[in-house]
Amino acid sequence: MTEMLAIGRQVLASQPFSALIGAQLAHFAQGEAVLEVPISDKVQQQHGFVHGGVVSYAADNAITFAGGSVLGPGVVTSEFKINYLRPAVGDKLVARASVLHTGKTQAVCRCEIYTVTKAQETLCAAAQGTIARVGAEPKQEKE
Amino acid sequence: MTEMLAIGRQVLASQPFSALIGAQLAHFAQGEAVLEVPISDKVQQQHGFVHGGVVSYAADNAITFAGGSVLGPGVVTSEFKINYLRPAVGDKLVARASVLHTGKTQAVCRCEIYTVTKAQETLCAAAQGTIARVGAEPKQEKE
Amino acid sequence: MTEMLAIGRQVLASQPFSALIGAQLAHFAQGEAVLEVPISDKVQQQHGFVHGGVVSYAADNAITFAGGSVLGPGVVTSEFKINYLRPAVGDKLVARASVLHTGKTQAVCRCEIYTVTKAQETLCAAAQGTIARVGAEPKQEKE
Amino acid sequence: MTEMLAIGRQVLASQPFSALIGAQLAHFAQGEAVLEVPISDKVQQQHGFVHGGVVSYAADNAITFAGGSVLGPGVVTSEFKINYLRPAVGDKLVARASVLHTGKTQAVCRCEIYTVTKAQETLCAAAQGTIARVGAEPKQEKE
Repeated sequence: MTEMLAIGRQVLASQPFSALIGAQLAHFAQGEAVLEVPISDKVQQQHGFVHGGVVSYAADNAITFAGGSVLGPGVVTSEFKINYLRPAVGDKLVARASVLHTGKTQAVCRCEIYTVTKAQETLCAAAQGTIARVGAEPKQEKE
Repeated sequence: MTEMLAIGRQVLASQPFSALIGAQLAHFAQGEAVLEVPISDKVQQQHGFVHGGVVSYAADNAITFAGGSVLGPGVVTSEFKINYLRPAVGDKLVARASVLHTGKTQAVCRCEIYTVTKAQETLCAAAQGTIARVGAEPKQEKE
Repeated sequence: MTEMLAIGRQVLASQPFSALIGAQLAHFAQGEAVLEVPISDKVQQQHGFVHGGVVSYAADNAITFAGGSVLGPGVVTSEFKINYLRPAVGDKLVARASVLHTGKTQAVCRCEIYTVTKAQETLCAAAQGTIARVGAEPKQEKE
Repeated sequence: MTEMLAIGRQVLASQPFSALIGAQLAHFAQGEAVLEVPISDKVQQQHGFVHGGVVSYAADNAITFAGGSVLGPGVVTSEFKINYLRPAVGDKLVARASVLHTGKTQAVCRCEIYTVTKAQETLCAAAQGTIARVGAEPKQEKE
């Protein structure tokens, strides 16, 4: 494991919500992050699909890590959009995020979210958003 | 409680993920839905704020209910975008969604997400997205 | 006419593209801007509707002015999303933007775009996005 | 020139607004479209950059063509989001769109928008949105 991945996993482990749903950081490198969520009953909605809110969590958190890989550890997601493409069913959710452009205080990232089974991977959602360095953004100050 | 709210609460209760984080439907009427999530450790990230993924869940689910109030029960969120405005701290998260426009198979909704304490409400995020009737959208078919 | 509106109109008049399509600033005050585009052949697509790109221009520019009303004149749109609700037909396009939240360097705005005839106004699109102060954002520096 | 590109160019030529700003279809194939806009004074804002509204037009129209390449000619953009990454300066704007996912009545597309000079290409914006078949969507009916 790289030192960067080890640090990233510590950050993720310190997020109670991420721990609650069992999210794991599978890959973390300059400009890239892969976040996985095991699919079990607790992340589902009423039809047995992964709840859209969990898919959006995975996208949000994966782009935050990708942005943090180029901007430094103190970052947050400022905004993002997500398109749901297919119902999310499978063994795990895999969110692959990468940085499109980095500025001084912000990075714009994209993310593709797949559902994975032994046999195959299926694209189930796609996201795009902005990550901002904390302190650089007014929204990070208590008002 | 209206019959509509009672039915909405049954739907929400049948979503294991919504139950996991204690989400509740506070209001459900034609073109409107209010979803609440109590704020405790388990929905937080590492700095004691509500995890962005939980805020996006609340937005996503609130607009799905709002869209369902005009399109019927079989609906999903096709896409949405969210802007995070302030760190989410307080006693509960309140997502207020309303329908901007309804078509035959889709509705476009907006949502404002507040954090609430005894003393005050604070706007912490804003979202906009599309709800689609299931079956009307290709994404709802197993492929 | 307020001094603020007069200044806003000078800014708009200095944008060659806005002049090309005849855009006008109808209202400009703290946290608010209303931009109008007369509907003629030149802003249409092949079916006689206003081109979506012109509707998105109106949304983009209206939120830039709204953001500028609270952040100061040197601002740009960082990002926005738009939902098209109905085909845009009528005498003019009216984009009404307002500020949802202002930080030190950014403002998040919403915009509703209407088509207007003598008889009525019709909501044809809705947008939400982020305005950033120039210089505060890396994207504004030549790289 | 392929027959598909020839047809696409006829469609673009029939859009008065696209003709006004000199937009051209450079490539049009299954799941892909490349739209170009020559950069001259008339598409600029007050600082000599291409107006954000023209960049968003290019993104919007490029994804409409990409979506149309898989859904058929009668399509419209339902919604999209765009992140502006750098000021757009150069000889021409090149919007490259591709289809991420196609359903029965909708396609989700992405687009990268570059500014091009003799010496180089520079990514200046990125977009993601939904294209819908006309008639399949309520928004396409006069109400």
